[in-house]
Amino acid sequence: MSAPTAAVVGSGLIGASAGLALRKAGWEVTLYDVRPEVARRAEELGAGRAAGLPGTAVADADVVDVAILAMPPQAVAASLLAVQAVGLARTYTDVASSKVVPARDAARLGCDLASYVGGHPMAGRERSGPGAARSDLFAGVPWIVTPGDAAHEHVERVVAMVEAAGARPVLLDAATHDAAVAVVSHVPQVAASLVAARLVEAPDQAVALAGQGIRDVTRIAGSDPDLWAGILQANAAPVLDVLTALRDDLDTVLAALRSVAAGDSDSVSVIRQTVATGALGRSRLPGKHGAPPATYAAVPVVVADRPGELARLFVDAGAAGINVEDVRIEHSPGQPVGTVELAVRPAAADALATALRAVGWTVHR
Amino acid sequence: MSAPTAAVVGSGLIGASAGLALRKAGWEVTLYDVRPEVARRAEELGAGRAAGLPGTAVADADVVDVAILAMPPQAVAASLLAVQAVGLARTYTDVASSKVVPARDAARLGCDLASYVGGHPMAGRERSGPGAARSDLFAGVPWIVTPGDAAHEHVERVVAMVEAAGARPVLLDAATHDAAVAVVSHVPQVAASLVAARLVEAPDQAVALAGQGIRDVTRIAGSDPDLWAGILQANAAPVLDVLTALRDDLDTVLAALRSVAAGDSDSVSVIRQTVATGALGRSRLPGKHGAPPATYAAVPVVVADRPGELARLFVDAGAAGINVEDVRIEHSPGQPVGTVELAVRPAAADALATALRAVGWTVHR
Repeated sequence: MSAPTAAVVGSGLIGASAGLALRKAGWEVTLYDVRPEVARRAEELGAGRAAGLPGTAVADADVVDVAILAMPPQAVAASLLAVQAVGLARTYTDVASSKVVPARDAARLGCDLASYVGGHPMAGRERSGPGAARSDLFAGVPWIVTPGDAAHEHVERVVAMVEAAGARPVLLDAATHDAAVAVVSHVPQVAASLVAARLVEAPDQAVALAGQGIRDVTRIAGSDPDLWAGILQANAAPVLDVLTALRDDLDTVLAALRSVAAGDSDSVSVIRQTVATGALGRSRLPGKHGAPPATYAAVPVVVADRPGELARLFVDAGAAGINVEDVRIEHSPGQPVGTVELAVRPAAADALATALRAVGWTVHR
Repeated sequence: MSAPTAAVVGSGLIGASAGLALRKAGWEVTLYDVRPEVARRAEELGAGRAAGLPGTAVADADVVDVAILAMPPQAVAASLLAVQAVGLARTYTDVASSKVVPARDAARLGCDLASYVGGHPMAGRERSGPGAARSDLFAGVPWIVTPGDAAHEHVERVVAMVEAAGARPVLLDAATHDAAVAVVSHVPQVAASLVAARLVEAPDQAVALAGQGIRDVTRIAGSDPDLWAGILQANAAPVLDVLTALRDDLDTVLAALRSVAAGDSDSVSVIRQTVATGALGRSRLPGKHGAPPATYAAVPVVVADRPGELARLFVDAGAAGINVEDVRIEHSPGQPVGTVELAVRPAAADALATALRAVGWTVHR
């Protein structure tokens, strides 16, 4: 039996990463891109063999199993029409972060919907292009598959491709997918951008007081504006729903603050309720590796900011036989000493603190 | 010359940490709390000597140098009046996160403003109470000092106390302070709570798709609702200003999304601009340790989720003589393998990647 085959149409971060992952799993991969140098760069990195898009019908022997359209959501339908016209593949999928709009556009253009299965790997990076590609980008991450009007054999083929790429296929209908990513991805992005925008005209002395809180809230605000404009455009309606609900809550907070500022302290309960509701929502987020929410215990250790200190700390933690689940380095503005918080299972925290103290670390627990 | 003396009024996280820090610097500290058992718990931890608040005038020999009112902003003025009435200290300060309201309330109550200097250490934790106190809580952090109507000698005394506690005194006027913390702390908290609140009624399958982005945006949403209701109440007017500007930006995004959803793709440029402005604001945040913004290079390394792996990685990084500036563990839902991103100075990144590869690590760079 010959190796399964894929055509990656669009050789940027996601396309090139898919190529790397599939080749690792023994697939043969052909790479295309509207900019041929991008496909060649992906080829150099080992993601497959770069080629020009065929202008006429592909010979039977060259038809691949799956074509993966790795491009912004707005471009998917037209590309699908073009590659279906030449018969590039048996089955077609995409990787766009919204699923209703590409499917609707494909229907309008008259694409063959029986062989098109929507897809969206929940992976990405703050960088883009084939140079940022990684063969393990999809390792263990959910890769949403939205069958739509596709025939069963095509869904099965896409699921097999997703598994070969190392991801975890999750079947959803397109509308459910779009509503979900609006809540967990697109609205957080907008909120981060809006908070960060308040810094543009803030005085230097205000910016200088920024701590870890605003750093975390705004981390994703550094993302690519063009990429995000496309994502939000393609998922405009679901984002609008969630963002409108958020705006209603915000108006409630604004009204309460106005009352409080005018001396009505009863409205404080409204503000308290907003924070309490947020804490409740936050508690629903799953823990590491998709496991049920786990509360790790934090073991704070004082560490000097010089080479070798973290190494020494982790060796000493390792010697105690305890798995460090997560690490947080607290930044102390203006001082070359910091606190490293080691997150461990609660049952292991005391033992770790004792073990680290025994070898001279300052542990605050 | 005898040791300097402080009275900590309110022995929770901040008060007890101040006690620990000052005692380490050789100060004598007396601890008070409206709940005597809280002061006793702080005493057990070494933060000072617990006592009952004096009901009558304090004898000259017992007057302390500085009384630190470590309590919510709403409680500061009444407490100040009470402790000034018995002459507890030569100089008085507080640690509340808003500075205009306590000073205004103190003036209204007829407190002595010449001996009262506002203060606000930019430190805190997601936990509260004396049990969470740390002697290094203030190490290197900005501790805002707002002189108001205080006489010079009292400002100097508070600055000396702040330095003894290990913090970095920053003199600001109260209104500037309040506007600054509204931008860098209070509005990010409200935004995080509003985003997290959208998770409360989200279906399980949506919550299951949550990635690192929403985790970061909502981390501080887990904070104490009572604490934050008090903070936002006391800084209502400045928060209202910033939050109203944010709401105006949000309305612009909502209008653009509505146009886009109705098929007007020209409005995408408005959405793009919002993300671009956020990226600009984000770029103003200072780097680690208050240094100018530094862009570190990320060196991603594949690490198995078992004891000793991080230790081995840090030892190998340390052997290359390279200081790891920050660490991020990317969570891969559903898989016991993750990527650890080591942030290092850009000039050191290639050397680190080469050194780690040489000893068998999979480095994606």
